[in-house]
Amino acid sequence: MRDHDNSLTPEERHGLYRAIVTRRDVRSQFLPDPIAQDSLARLLVAAHWAPSVGFMQPWSFILVQDKALRAQVKEAFEKANAEAALMFEGTRRDQYKALKLEGILDAPLNLCITCDRDRAGPVVLGRTHIPTMDLYSTVCAVQNLWLAARAEGLGVGWVSILDENRLKELLGLTEKVVPVAYLCIGHVDHFLAGPELEAKGWRKRLPIEELVSIDSLSGAQALSPEFLAALRQAQDQAEHGTLGKLDP
Amino acid sequence: MRDHDNSLTPEERHGLYRAIVTRRDVRSQFLPDPIAQDSLARLLVAAHWAPSVGFMQPWSFILVQDKALRAQVKEAFEKANAEAALMFEGTRRDQYKALKLEGILDAPLNLCITCDRDRAGPVVLGRTHIPTMDLYSTVCAVQNLWLAARAEGLGVGWVSILDENRLKELLGLTEKVVPVAYLCIGHVDHFLAGPELEAKGWRKRLPIEELVSIDSLSGAQALSPEFLAALRQAQDQAEHGTLGKLDP
Repeated sequence: MRDHDNSLTPEERHGLYRAIVTRRDVRSQFLPDPIAQDSLARLLVAAHWAPSVGFMQPWSFILVQDKALRAQVKEAFEKANAEAALMFEGTRRDQYKALKLEGILDAPLNLCITCDRDRAGPVVLGRTHIPTMDLYSTVCAVQNLWLAARAEGLGVGWVSILDENRLKELLGLTEKVVPVAYLCIGHVDHFLAGPELEAKGWRKRLPIEELVSIDSLSGAQALSPEFLAALRQAQDQAEHGTLGKLDP
Repeated sequence: MRDHDNSLTPEERHGLYRAIVTRRDVRSQFLPDPIAQDSLARLLVAAHWAPSVGFMQPWSFILVQDKALRAQVKEAFEKANAEAALMFEGTRRDQYKALKLEGILDAPLNLCITCDRDRAGPVVLGRTHIPTMDLYSTVCAVQNLWLAARAEGLGVGWVSILDENRLKELLGLTEKVVPVAYLCIGHVDHFLAGPELEAKGWRKRLPIEELVSIDSLSGAQALSPEFLAALRQAQDQAEHGTLGKLDP
């Protein structure tokens, strides 16, 4: 028997929005405390309930626990990060070098979410014209897990400064399996109030109204004043953590 | 002032899980009723609060409202879908042809979420080694919006059977802008109890324990009996809509 009731309660709805606006990319606040097994199981099932092209479910979840293996991933990060720093110029490079961009050894768990491009054979419903749809499905699983972690009080950090081939080698991935996301997961001392890169002056949050247009990217047709006001109010509520709250 | 409280209430937490397990890829249940502007604004801001590599926020949101334009997108879908059908063999082709795979003209709103690969210049923090990270960020925005829609009682369907170049042409996208997701959005008659492709016998849900391994994809190290039981219980709870409910 499944749940056929259409509507979430106002508090449930607000829970979804709270998870969305208070979710952070965690690098520095991890605690060593272990993650409860039932909590981890819920995260993985939340990921598994993501949408997937042709119901392909192309994902696999590799729990990276071995300390020596994690030290090798950390080493791969250090190498890539040194290469990355050289791509920035002047003060931007100094600013880059001062950022902590991973919690590989700090977090009690690392998790690699992969995409098996052969999971459902060569022809996949919905992937016939946009071949990256299976990678996109896998990212939906990552985001589900990230939000579920936030709801469980767990922080997640996505480490993307890695050589993909080295990561494949370390995790024993076959040719057709892509390591889409390498995640650090654990309890946190606290969740930061806003994105760390914003707080550290790397880049600002863009106003939502600059990102919305009608019928084409150039947006010759203007948004109505009412809709503009609604967009600004929603962005303001997100900044204050009240998005989706009834009578905020 | 932002919300610094770490924890969601049990009901809020359950709301997040309910949105995740009851979210559907909607093709056939759209109602023509318009979407409230404040509701749409919340969806877009939820998407805008997705994680993005280097806080790049590469997304834009094109509300596709013009009927003639939507008819052209529908035509592009019909063409691609006829090509797709030919890629399947025998009874699978018949089964494919019997599926309704889009609600472009049925839904009151279409939305294209794009990724501007030049949004933050050529060198982006975190995109230096995996160049697709900005596309992945955009998919995180799609999934946020999809879950927010579910919480608002709105259905979303992702139409991926489209020629990307034709879609770029129709929406006036410049070279460096990728149309990551073309979505149909609207109120629904009802949400299906489970994934439509599963109900129609296209493909089954995989058991979660077959997707989880330790330290390598081949998973020489077995999962503990306790963790296996936790995974199976969580999958069972997801099937019954009770995932993340306290004392389910």
